[in-house]
Amino acid sequence: MRRKDRAMITLITDFGMSDAYAGVIKGVILSVNPDIAIVDLTHEIAPGNVDQAAFVLHTSCRYFPDGSVHVVVVDPGVGSGRQILAVCALNHLFVAPDNGVLKYIFHSDPGARIYSVTRTAFFLNPVSRTFHGRDIFAPVAAHLSIGVPPQDMGEPAVEFIRGSVHLPEKKKNRIYGHIVYIDRFGNAISNIPGDFTADWKEPEIHVQNSVIRGLQTCYSDVPAGEPLALLGSNDTIEISVRNGNAAESLGIKVNDPVQMTI
Amino acid sequence: MRRKDRAMITLITDFGMSDAYAGVIKGVILSVNPDIAIVDLTHEIAPGNVDQAAFVLHTSCRYFPDGSVHVVVVDPGVGSGRQILAVCALNHLFVAPDNGVLKYIFHSDPGARIYSVTRTAFFLNPVSRTFHGRDIFAPVAAHLSIGVPPQDMGEPAVEFIRGSVHLPEKKKNRIYGHIVYIDRFGNAISNIPGDFTADWKEPEIHVQNSVIRGLQTCYSDVPAGEPLALLGSNDTIEISVRNGNAAESLGIKVNDPVQMTI
Amino acid sequence: MRRKDRAMITLITDFGMSDAYAGVIKGVILSVNPDIAIVDLTHEIAPGNVDQAAFVLHTSCRYFPDGSVHVVVVDPGVGSGRQILAVCALNHLFVAPDNGVLKYIFHSDPGARIYSVTRTAFFLNPVSRTFHGRDIFAPVAAHLSIGVPPQDMGEPAVEFIRGSVHLPEKKKNRIYGHIVYIDRFGNAISNIPGDFTADWKEPEIHVQNSVIRGLQTCYSDVPAGEPLALLGSNDTIEISVRNGNAAESLGIKVNDPVQMTI
Repeated sequence: MRRKDRAMITLITDFGMSDAYAGVIKGVILSVNPDIAIVDLTHEIAPGNVDQAAFVLHTSCRYFPDGSVHVVVVDPGVGSGRQILAVCALNHLFVAPDNGVLKYIFHSDPGARIYSVTRTAFFLNPVSRTFHGRDIFAPVAAHLSIGVPPQDMGEPAVEFIRGSVHLPEKKKNRIYGHIVYIDRFGNAISNIPGDFTADWKEPEIHVQNSVIRGLQTCYSDVPAGEPLALLGSNDTIEISVRNGNAAESLGIKVNDPVQMTI
Repeated sequence: MRRKDRAMITLITDFGMSDAYAGVIKGVILSVNPDIAIVDLTHEIAPGNVDQAAFVLHTSCRYFPDGSVHVVVVDPGVGSGRQILAVCALNHLFVAPDNGVLKYIFHSDPGARIYSVTRTAFFLNPVSRTFHGRDIFAPVAAHLSIGVPPQDMGEPAVEFIRGSVHLPEKKKNRIYGHIVYIDRFGNAISNIPGDFTADWKEPEIHVQNSVIRGLQTCYSDVPAGEPLALLGSNDTIEISVRNGNAAESLGIKVNDPVQMTI
Repeated sequence: MRRKDRAMITLITDFGMSDAYAGVIKGVILSVNPDIAIVDLTHEIAPGNVDQAAFVLHTSCRYFPDGSVHVVVVDPGVGSGRQILAVCALNHLFVAPDNGVLKYIFHSDPGARIYSVTRTAFFLNPVSRTFHGRDIFAPVAAHLSIGVPPQDMGEPAVEFIRGSVHLPEKKKNRIYGHIVYIDRFGNAISNIPGDFTADWKEPEIHVQNSVIRGLQTCYSDVPAGEPLALLGSNDTIEISVRNGNAAESLGIKVNDPVQMTI
């Protein structure tokens, strides 16, 4: 059904929406590629929270067409010597600081091609010390979006931060996982895939001091205010409170262990 | 002055801006129709507040070209058996849950054509239990935007929730209305149309325990901090406090009755 | 590298993101010029804060292509007799209320051409008293974006508010400047240009009761929680706290004087 190609760039930053930093990045991109569709994934990553950005990127990028360029500017090391990476993986392109924010991408695609962004010809001139999002990430992404190949941005990266991904484990009657994200509704999203429990009738989910019995199919399966577990929109097990905030009321934080048993 | 047609989709959700839910919806839409212009009306509807979304939709959609597709994902019943509606009304198209959020649209256009969205060929596959905005609303809206007619989305809806609209009443010297929306400035917007009072010289406006005398023509007609009533941007009577927050300082809430007298 | 012209409009308002006011402005613009790229610079200007909007406009507009149209709706005088201006300056176009929000633009381009927007043929009809952003600014900007020249919007402005710009001063061993903006990270941005201090080895920066010694090159040059001064992304001296909020912890506000000495 797709009619023709139009290049797309997505943005994930911790800039917030009250300053014009994200808007200026768009101006730089549109100055290079005026036809681009730019999509804000979020600018509300907690300042410097690389893990949160990694999860958002990983679960969002697959909903964009092949060839889309995904830019992450969650970059507490800006202006220090840290590398910037241009990556071709999963049939998408990524521009991000070398701080582990691409950990799920590297994990999902062992054949990722990873370049260190050094070709200043594609940067704004001069480059500021504090806003590489505007001066480097934006023009590099825009040039990728018009077909400049990532290998033109610099040499293959020799060393880079791969980052570590929590992997869920299944042992007979017990599954070990972790909470990997909490959304603004307080839903606590685990890394336990739904198919781990496909043949389980009535599992128990243990998180913090709570035990939740059974998997529901939707929020309205329990009364308002009650906790529940269900298969979330990323195909992983999720802890919620109907019309409430599970993370707050059950005291759940990112990286908390989750166990499931039958 | 309009040069040529470009399809447009507007979005109203209660997803907030901190997660990437709205961005992912745009990825799904752009994957079907890359040329679309997508406009965020708001993602800050209070979670599950159907009346608030209904008002925003009703007062905003008329400023978009005929044929625009308006998507509302304020959907506390997601994953339960509730219907999803595709509606052709007022020369626009609407995709929304069957929960009354289209009440003003149905009220304004008695000839609305209303379909129950059931044709899974247009859905993402698989469909999650918790994120129909991404898996159903987005691809259905995108296909409507490239010209798939709404009747291709399913059968005419036999039953649906029409929703009830507060109607203002005029009786001799007295008008009865309600507050229907409070904006972020604290302006309390009523459903009393300006032409009800066109021939009234110096009306009194009664709301909660306050009485406001006369209609002003702009905020600066009263001193800072003073309440006033004026004809708002939707052509209805609105209660404000200059440089202040009328809803807070006068204790006004949505659905509060408003009376006007001369 | 730029391929072809596509018109662009940027938006700066104090409308916030929870109501649909900004979205409706986009509907009006797209109804006139469906191919336009619309970029939100910010909708989170503090209500009525003309100085904040002026700074955001001035530091952002240069990152957009020549011919872009920049719309500012920070307009506490809406509905009173205040003028609306259409301005051609710096090879860009501007539509803004006559309240000083263009002060930096006028300061930067003495050859600015300034028109009073009065040609109602380009307005929505009717024009509301409270939402000129939708009824006047949006359609005027959209028509500018399709090539209607600004002089068609009305007569040259005879009187208008030029606004006053704090200018930094250098006297031998001492520089006098001001804080002109505080961003959401609490970075306090001064109007002291970097080249004022280019030949200074180890300056002292005095702001409120704090003295900061030396200019760093990036945030990570100091330990977490420590204040620092550095050359910010606008090429002016900026006061920060690494991983902290300088404005809060040092008690800095906009318009505070800053002195630098060697």
